[in-house]
Amino acid sequence: MSAAQPKARGGIDLGGTKIQTAIVDPGGKVLGQARRPTPTEGNPPDVAEAMVQALREAADDAGVETADLQGVGVGSPGDADGKTGVVSGARNLPDWAGSFPLGETLSKALGTEVRIGNDVQVAVEGEYRLGAGRPFDSLLGVWWGTGVGGGIVLDGKPWLGRGAAGEIGHVVVKRGGAKCPCGRKGCMEAYAGRAAMEAEARRQHEEGAKTDLFKLMRKHERTRLTSGIWERALDHGDHMATKLVERAIEALGTGIASAVNLLDPEAVILGGGLGDRLGERYRDALSEEMGKHLFVDDRPPALLGSELNDLGGALGASLLFAPQSRS
Amino acid sequence: MSAAQPKARGGIDLGGTKIQTAIVDPGGKVLGQARRPTPTEGNPPDVAEAMVQALREAADDAGVETADLQGVGVGSPGDADGKTGVVSGARNLPDWAGSFPLGETLSKALGTEVRIGNDVQVAVEGEYRLGAGRPFDSLLGVWWGTGVGGGIVLDGKPWLGRGAAGEIGHVVVKRGGAKCPCGRKGCMEAYAGRAAMEAEARRQHEEGAKTDLFKLMRKHERTRLTSGIWERALDHGDHMATKLVERAIEALGTGIASAVNLLDPEAVILGGGLGDRLGERYRDALSEEMGKHLFVDDRPPALLGSELNDLGGALGASLLFAPQSRS
Repeated sequence: MSAAQPKARGGIDLGGTKIQTAIVDPGGKVLGQARRPTPTEGNPPDVAEAMVQALREAADDAGVETADLQGVGVGSPGDADGKTGVVSGARNLPDWAGSFPLGETLSKALGTEVRIGNDVQVAVEGEYRLGAGRPFDSLLGVWWGTGVGGGIVLDGKPWLGRGAAGEIGHVVVKRGGAKCPCGRKGCMEAYAGRAAMEAEARRQHEEGAKTDLFKLMRKHERTRLTSGIWERALDHGDHMATKLVERAIEALGTGIASAVNLLDPEAVILGGGLGDRLGERYRDALSEEMGKHLFVDDRPPALLGSELNDLGGALGASLLFAPQSRS
Repeated sequence: MSAAQPKARGGIDLGGTKIQTAIVDPGGKVLGQARRPTPTEGNPPDVAEAMVQALREAADDAGVETADLQGVGVGSPGDADGKTGVVSGARNLPDWAGSFPLGETLSKALGTEVRIGNDVQVAVEGEYRLGAGRPFDSLLGVWWGTGVGGGIVLDGKPWLGRGAAGEIGHVVVKRGGAKCPCGRKGCMEAYAGRAAMEAEARRQHEEGAKTDLFKLMRKHERTRLTSGIWERALDHGDHMATKLVERAIEALGTGIASAVNLLDPEAVILGGGLGDRLGERYRDALSEEMGKHLFVDDRPPALLGSELNDLGGALGASLLFAPQSRS
C-alpha cells in the first residue's frame, strides 16, 4: 500500500448575511472560493442546502470533487457542538432557535467528513496559524461585530474550556450597567456590540437627539446600522455616532484589559465587522483605554488587526482538518 | 551506576506575617514542618536568613539534611522571577521595594537547588495536585486576602502567560469605580481586598458611621483588620462589617463570573485568609452573585474552598520540584 496523497480541504464560514467557502491545499494555499447570501427565510435545511451549493461552487472553482476532500470544516454561529456536529440556538439564522444536525446533513450531501466549530474560535485559529497571529504562541482574539465574540489560543492550542470559553463580550465592564442583548447587565457587549449600539442610537434618536445614522442607513438601502454605515457616519463627523463608538472603545479597552490581566497573552487581535472597519482608526484610543486598566502596564500585548479579513472564517474552518501546527 | 533514590523536597511559603516551611517525601507526604514570624524590620537578607532557619527546622523535624533535598521551592510575594530567582517589589516585606536574588541566596545557605514561584500560583498548584482541585483538569484559584490574587490551571498545567497571568484581583468590575490599592479604578480588589475594605471602613468610621470593627481590633491587640477580626464582627452582627463583606462578595461574584465567561474552567477554588474564614459562610451568596453574570448559567463551575489551608503554600512550593503530574 502506498501512503495516501495529502488532500485539499474545505472551509465554510456561516454568517448571518453571507456564506463564504474556500478550498485550501495542504500547504494552506487557496485553490477556490465562493460566496452566497445566507437565506433569510426558510429553515435550517434550507441554510444547509445553500452551504452545500456554496461549497460545491468553490470546489468547481478549485477543480476538485467535494467527495475527494480530506474534509470540510464549518465555523458556525450559535452553540456549535464539535463532537456531534449539532448546532443549536443560532438565532441570527432562519428558524434556528432549536437544534439541527448540521454536520451530518452536510456530510451526506458532500460525501466527505464534516467538522463543526464556533465561528469566532475558528476565525481566531485562522489568524493564529495563517494571519496576524503567526509570530505569537498565545493570543486573545476579539471579534467586534453585531455581538462581541472571542477566541483564545494558549501555548499554540485553542483553549475551549468546557466548550464555551472565550466569551469576552460577556466580561462585565460595569456592574449594574447597561442591559446587554444577552439579558444580563454591564457586559462589554452591552456597550460595544453593534446590535446594542444600534438600539442605543435608536433610543437617543427617538428622544430627539440628532444623527445622520438612520438617514445613511436608508440611503444605502440597509435595514440595520451595518459596520459600513457606522464608518460613513464617523466620516461625516456625526456626533452621536462618534460618541457611541467612543463609548464602545472604552468598554472594549476595559474588558480586554481585564482579560489580559487574567491571561497575559502575547497579542490581542481585533477582528469582526466593526473591528475590521474601525480597528486601525481607533487603535491608539483602544490602547489608551486598555492602558488605564492593565496591571502590568509597561509591556502591553501586541494589539493587531486581523489579516485574513473576509476569507478568515472559511480558512480557519478548513484548519479543523489540519494538524495542530502552523501551516 | 544505580538509579538515584527519589529524594524529599522542601517548600517555603513566604508570607507577610509568617514563614511556613515543609519537608515532603516524593509521594507528597509531609515529613516535617516549621513556622516562624516574618521579620518586620531589617532587609531582604534578614528575611532570607529567617527562611533558611525555618527550612532547617523543618528538615530537623523530618530528620534530613537540607543539602540532601532534591530542592527547595519558594512561594514568594512581589514579582518573583522563576528563571533568575530574583524577587522584586515585595512591598509587604521589609525594605524589599527593589530586587533581591532570593533563590541564589537561599541556595548557597541550604546547599541545594532553589526555585522561586509566585505565592498564589504555587498555592493554587498545591490545591490542584494535592487538595480541592484534584478531581479537575482546569481551575481558577481566587485567593481572597489583603489583596485578591489568582492562579490558573488549564489542561493540568499552570498557565502563567508571560509571567503575570492570574491577576483576577485586577479584573475590572466597575469602570470608573472605586480606587484600587494598585492605583487604578474599579478593580475587583478595590472592593474585595482586605486592605481596600479596611480603608473603606476607616473612611466611613471617620465620617461617623458606627462599627465595632476597630474596637475588636484593639481588643485582640491587632493593628489591622485581620480576617479573624472581620469574622468576629460578622458574628456580632456588625452592620458596617456585614455591608462591606456583602459588597466584597458582589465584586468577587462579578469578577469571577467574567473570568469564567472567558476561561470556562471546571472549578473555582476560593482560598486566602478571608476566603478560608468566610468562604463557607458566603458560598451561596457568592454563587448567586456569579450566577447573575455567567453567560452559560446552566452549568456553573464547581465552587470549592481550599483544602490545604495553612500548609498549602509550602506544599505547593515544594511541587516546583515535582514532575508535572498529580502525586
